[in-house]
Amino acid sequence: MSAEKLFFEDFPPGQRFTLGPKPVLAEEIIEFAREFDPQPMHLDEAAGRASILGGLAASGWHTSSMLMRMMADSYILNAHCEGAPGIDLMEWRKPVLAGDTLDGHSTVLEARLMRSRLGMGIVKFRHVVENQRGELVCLSENSVMIRTRPEDGMGREVSR
Amino acid sequence: MSAEKLFFEDFPPGQRFTLGPKPVLAEEIIEFAREFDPQPMHLDEAAGRASILGGLAASGWHTSSMLMRMMADSYILNAHCEGAPGIDLMEWRKPVLAGDTLDGHSTVLEARLMRSRLGMGIVKFRHVVENQRGELVCLSENSVMIRTRPEDGMGREVSR
Repeated sequence: MSAEKLFFEDFPPGQRFTLGPKPVLAEEIIEFAREFDPQPMHLDEAAGRASILGGLAASGWHTSSMLMRMMADSYILNAHCEGAPGIDLMEWRKPVLAGDTLDGHSTVLEARLMRSRLGMGIVKFRHVVENQRGELVCLSENSVMIRTRPEDGMGREVSR
Repeated sequence: MSAEKLFFEDFPPGQRFTLGPKPVLAEEIIEFAREFDPQPMHLDEAAGRASILGGLAASGWHTSSMLMRMMADSYILNAHCEGAPGIDLMEWRKPVLAGDTLDGHSTVLEARLMRSRLGMGIVKFRHVVENQRGELVCLSENSVMIRTRPEDGMGREVSR
């Protein structure tokens, strides 16, 4: 993380950011599932083993949310971000099981100025998330709105 | 919810399920954001008002997770589901603000048997989520793996 917050111009295509590591705890899997996805394989070790997932497995929506947190810690909180319009791609390739550790990287695929909002750009990322065995567990793409560098060129926040 | 759990065959194209209502509380927005998406507009009312979202706004990943919970309560927990391979479409069309109430529906777009897994089908849904003013806040599509009805034809679970 740099001392100065990043602007749109700091996200050229090809720029790459490290994600994680994020250990995945059984308690976190169960807590998320209780609130958002209370299917048996996300709530109980035995039910997970009996399912095609093979163990107590994080909800895919939980994996996606953990990806968001890894993005936040890697670069989103350190940039002038204004939110995202959605998710372009989200593939849950392999189960994420209790005891796994996730890491990966985000790469800028595309960066363009927004026509509809002055001073804002859209940066499209590809996210790759792997487990501790280097297996791809989640492949995703999404776009984030990021402010352009103000005209003084110094990266200082311009008051509105 | 029917007394008997649903199989793949109970999800023909065009079948529609009601989602919600789900009131969105400020505390829930903040709690999710603290864990998964700690950007200021998701943590603080004043920061949300100063952002382009216009108020304390749920993270898009939170909206998606609330959608999952509405699906679970509407039909997933009442069906022989075995998880999902990902998300095909996720558009966060309008901010979801503290105090909003979400509802909507899921419609089956497509249902096909899996070639790679005997006894399993893939059902693709379109999900529409609106706020209390009838505004579309989230449009999504995803596919879910659901077991086919066992050969005895009675919908009884066949032991494995």
